[in-house]
Amino acid sequence: MDERTARIALACAVEPGTAGVAEVVAEQGAEAALRQVRARPAPPAPVIGRLAPDEVPAMIDAQQRQGVRILVPGDPEFPSQLLDLPEPPLALWVRGAMDLRMATLRSVAVVGARACTPYGERATALLAEGLAAAGWTITSGGAFGIDAAAHRAALGCAGGTVAVLACGVDVAYPRAHDSLLCRIADSGSVVSELPPGSQALRHRFLARNRLIAAISRGTVVVEAARRSGAIATANRALELGRAVMAVPGPITSMASSGTNRLLHEGSAHAVSSSEEVVTVVLGAGVHDPGPEALPWHPHGGAVREGRRGGAGAHADLPPESLLVLAALPARGGRSLPQISAQVGRDEATCLAHLGLLEVGGAATRGRSGWRRLG
Amino acid sequence: MDERTARIALACAVEPGTAGVAEVVAEQGAEAALRQVRARPAPPAPVIGRLAPDEVPAMIDAQQRQGVRILVPGDPEFPSQLLDLPEPPLALWVRGAMDLRMATLRSVAVVGARACTPYGERATALLAEGLAAAGWTITSGGAFGIDAAAHRAALGCAGGTVAVLACGVDVAYPRAHDSLLCRIADSGSVVSELPPGSQALRHRFLARNRLIAAISRGTVVVEAARRSGAIATANRALELGRAVMAVPGPITSMASSGTNRLLHEGSAHAVSSSEEVVTVVLGAGVHDPGPEALPWHPHGGAVREGRRGGAGAHADLPPESLLVLAALPARGGRSLPQISAQVGRDEATCLAHLGLLEVGGAATRGRSGWRRLG
Repeated sequence: MDERTARIALACAVEPGTAGVAEVVAEQGAEAALRQVRARPAPPAPVIGRLAPDEVPAMIDAQQRQGVRILVPGDPEFPSQLLDLPEPPLALWVRGAMDLRMATLRSVAVVGARACTPYGERATALLAEGLAAAGWTITSGGAFGIDAAAHRAALGCAGGTVAVLACGVDVAYPRAHDSLLCRIADSGSVVSELPPGSQALRHRFLARNRLIAAISRGTVVVEAARRSGAIATANRALELGRAVMAVPGPITSMASSGTNRLLHEGSAHAVSSSEEVVTVVLGAGVHDPGPEALPWHPHGGAVREGRRGGAGAHADLPPESLLVLAALPARGGRSLPQISAQVGRDEATCLAHLGLLEVGGAATRGRSGWRRLG
Repeated sequence: MDERTARIALACAVEPGTAGVAEVVAEQGAEAALRQVRARPAPPAPVIGRLAPDEVPAMIDAQQRQGVRILVPGDPEFPSQLLDLPEPPLALWVRGAMDLRMATLRSVAVVGARACTPYGERATALLAEGLAAAGWTITSGGAFGIDAAAHRAALGCAGGTVAVLACGVDVAYPRAHDSLLCRIADSGSVVSELPPGSQALRHRFLARNRLIAAISRGTVVVEAARRSGAIATANRALELGRAVMAVPGPITSMASSGTNRLLHEGSAHAVSSSEEVVTVVLGAGVHDPGPEALPWHPHGGAVREGRRGGAGAHADLPPESLLVLAALPARGGRSLPQISAQVGRDEATCLAHLGLLEVGGAATRGRSGWRRLG
């Protein structure tokens, strides 16, 4: 059985995000983990279903007919920053128009309370519109409140947006967001590590939150109570070394009590505008290995091998070069000053990275400037 | 002529808060400075009046009859923390019931915009009442808006409060605060470094702000626009190494634009309750988010250096060194080969960066390997 088939079968068999499964997969591979899951009574994680490995090709086909593709680590479209997680997803179901890896290279999570205030909605729109207009993808959880305001703001200015769900990508949850999720899929991506048909159960939100934190370069919490899912997402982002930001709010508002607490504790940067978000996120990239899979990534060995020879020239580049790569258009071209302004590094530094990218076959310089290859 | 008499005569003769006078007084004493002021045409500061040294005893007596005492550095009631200023006051006129030194040993400045919002007033009352109830003296400037709300909150719960004025203690400025200032004097203190009769002129507010910053253990800015007196007070407090705090407010409110900016820059701690203020003031430094929480803070270098000695050195390190720094644990240690593997650079390169980090006080080598400092 190949690793890809085993991973998909395993993803259909166990609750996602558990350390138990992650450990077995990392040490012995997905097939061994699958065997352990089948050899009850002591599976390494709660069992949620069963898909025989020989049924996997048919499931892939059936999903494809419904416009859903299944990604596993090592696939060119798999966002390798997810491998920063101690429990990376076994597989991802993706419904949508965007290339998930490219979309999330420059992405910011905008998350917060379901029960947000009008201020929270205004602040979300302010930040998400500015970020989307500047070419940043907005990731969020597709929930009521701040999440929905963030997705809508991105859609409203034709920006990229990714919804990471706590249920299957074919399940409309919440029900009232059926059409919102369709609009997100039309121009962005709807993503889940759960197989189709999976319901949004309580514990799955926490598991889902870790994906939002890991897939994004930074997380902005707009409004959140002290003990809430959004604060949990911020804490996961902190653990992963991602930029964590909070929007200041009235100290008299319960809806801002969690965000103001993050600020008080020094766990988050205060951000009042999309420009400030970009400053923090790009500033974090200098030190932070960042979301891209790096050649020296502690968890990335297997993935890297999978990529070499494929689409993976990028994988061996230093993190800063990937920042520069992310600033290049796929068509046309961009000038050095434009690239420098977008990346926030001086022209000489950018040129050095462009040279690396050119040598690696990832970028080229044409008449109209620099552009991405492949 | 004794130093005390010379200081009082000098305080009546020159504009307060100038570096010129402070320098002469520090090097040659107040009498020499007084001689220089009288020997026009090149006085070390703008001349505002004239009081012959032999008229000083009569002025002291006259002031005493009006309930005003005059303090100079060295007097038991003179708050010696004012000597942290590069331009300490020459003398202080004090009207009020409290011993100024005792009152300000546990004091917090609560300052902000004159044109505050109802939210700003509520937040001020919330914090100042809590602080006053916990035995902290509230210092402020006696102005409209946040200042008045802070004084009133303290008076309202029989707490101590000190108003530091930009005019003589016998001048009611603003006029509408005549009775408020009387109430402050009745149970607290009204203070000025200007002689009686001095008017509140524009430049005197900035000089006064430095006294508020210096006399208090910490400064809380509740609401302030970006360029405002309250932000200037916060900056003086920062320079003096005092705790600086800002109350988060809506990012959609101009009245919170300066406070939210302080938070974004990492110049101020976010505080949402009087308990948080006390935590910050008592733990000033300890509580600092500091370089390990936000090692990559884009603007935070200067602040951190002011607060923490060498820890802010991170901001000046080359990006590659910061990658190496990011690979170091805060506790225990990591070996050179491990660091090299994680960073993806050869050992010699890593060692060079580790050397830089060590010299900068950001890293150290112990028995179990290299670790991060600060």
